[in-house]
Amino acid sequence: MNRNEMIAAVKAEMPERRWKHTLGVMETSIMLAERFNGDPERAETAAILHDVAKYWPTARMETIIRERQLPEELLQYDKELWHAPVGAFVAEHDYGIWDLEILDAIRYHTSGREGMTLMDKIVCLADYMEQGRDFPGVQRIRELAEHNLDQALVAGFDSTIGYLLQQGKRIFPLTIAARNDLISHLREAGQ
Amino acid sequence: MNRNEMIAAVKAEMPERRWKHTLGVMETSIMLAERFNGDPERAETAAILHDVAKYWPTARMETIIRERQLPEELLQYDKELWHAPVGAFVAEHDYGIWDLEILDAIRYHTSGREGMTLMDKIVCLADYMEQGRDFPGVQRIRELAEHNLDQALVAGFDSTIGYLLQQGKRIFPLTIAARNDLISHLREAGQ
Repeated sequence: MNRNEMIAAVKAEMPERRWKHTLGVMETSIMLAERFNGDPERAETAAILHDVAKYWPTARMETIIRERQLPEELLQYDKELWHAPVGAFVAEHDYGIWDLEILDAIRYHTSGREGMTLMDKIVCLADYMEQGRDFPGVQRIRELAEHNLDQALVAGFDSTIGYLLQQGKRIFPLTIAARNDLISHLREAGQ
Repeated sequence: MNRNEMIAAVKAEMPERRWKHTLGVMETSIMLAERFNGDPERAETAAILHDVAKYWPTARMETIIRERQLPEELLQYDKELWHAPVGAFVAEHDYGIWDLEILDAIRYHTSGREGMTLMDKIVCLADYMEQGRDFPGVQRIRELAEHNLDQALVAGFDSTIGYLLQQGKRIFPLTIAARNDLISHLREAGQ
């Protein structure tokens, strides 16, 4: 499947509004990859596919999580988290992606994880800050992203965790692990 | 060692201001134990001892954590967390406490944990809300504690997590596990 076929297939999986968001994540991922010495082409592929399962019915996602041995722990947490690992599964099985870095960037784009790769960080941060996003703190994330990928990502996770506190919702442990790990690296680097 | 000897020994371990806080935690622990069908006498013992190691030198706490096989993971996180498991160690070895529920209430009074016992909850919440405490949100914690131990404790953890976000500090995973677990139980109970 070439780039245009992939784009057409993913576009058909979501409403117009969400496709516009995907275009924003693609553009921002390329920009961040160029800024921080990543691979723009592969980052764009991850961005195209990152929300491929976002509008799938919950039951279909749950079936994949259970039957394909994705982490069942996910089912205890917000459904918003499910589409990321399911999306990685779909990217591999329906779109023929075999590049593990691309698959992981899709898999962890919502939660983050300990030891995020450069590609993980680029796609996750692009998802927070693409130009269509508008939430308290997004401008600060964009400013930090001018110079420091890790600081910008910590600010992104801060906004997610703060939102979950406010809503009285559970916090996915992997997001805490991701944020703690980034803070440790920033400290070691004296930033 | 009887109650009075224990009080005299713990009082000698801390400045006057902190001893006043301990008296507040004792009083509040008794009150919460009476309110929520706990054991006031054992809760008071845990409260007396909860901050016994709070003013110990960092190096002395670190030695105990390393040499006595307390979780070394603690050393990566805020020093504020160390005195709780070290305090449980001291309560057992220097004060002859063998009651595991009392020891655990001391051990987890700062972090919380998944599956908190009633005694854990009482001492942890008393530490947040005793009358000497004054931080944003403490009044709401006290109001929730009139009727619902778990809701009050979630509000306590929310204040800790919010503070750590604001300070750019790492968040101890056990606190997230404790809060997630309380929220799950509250949902199951329809609260």
